[in-house]
Amino acid sequence: MPSKLEGAMDALITVFHNYSGSEGDKYKLSKGELKELLNAELTDFLMSQKDPMLVEKIMNDLDSNKDNEVDFNEFVVLVAALTVACNDFFQEQQKKRSK
Amino acid sequence: MPSKLEGAMDALITVFHNYSGSEGDKYKLSKGELKELLNAELTDFLMSQKDPMLVEKIMNDLDSNKDNEVDFNEFVVLVAALTVACNDFFQEQQKKRSK
Repeated sequence: MPSKLEGAMDALITVFHNYSGSEGDKYKLSKGELKELLNAELTDFLMSQKDPMLVEKIMNDLDSNKDNEVDFNEFVVLVAALTVACNDFFQEQQKKRSK
Repeated sequence: MPSKLEGAMDALITVFHNYSGSEGDKYKLSKGELKELLNAELTDFLMSQKDPMLVEKIMNDLDSNKDNEVDFNEFVVLVAALTVACNDFFQEQQKKRSK
């Protein structure tokens, strides 16, 4: 039985490959696949951002090797950054409550 | 209902705080807390490594600001690196199978 942490790591890999396999290189996200992933998996986050160009900007930020696709290493950077932001928010709420 | 990706991100935060709250700064992992987390959450990974000093080395690598503790940002770097390694292994297996 995988631990909670192993389950989370496995989920990151599974989610990525659920979308990367649709078109082109099956180990990379095209812009369309990234948009599909973000819309389905980070709906609330995307809707809270009013910027219609958000997916474009995320794509440009993530695509560090400029091959117009996002590989798993680049994807993990996005997930890590969003998780850190969520944790910062969580810790701020905790600290406010304990005052 | 959170998505699979949101669930994984939430799990990373939850696991970290399950262990960081035991002693000292409740938002950071002491060496003892890190050891407990690794033993419980990454048992197979730890056992596959024969190096008794592994936790020490991971601690030194993660503790980028040298405060002898691991904060969430430093923890996410470990999880990202391990997840990328797992994905690389997964993709290699996939490519072998499709030959």
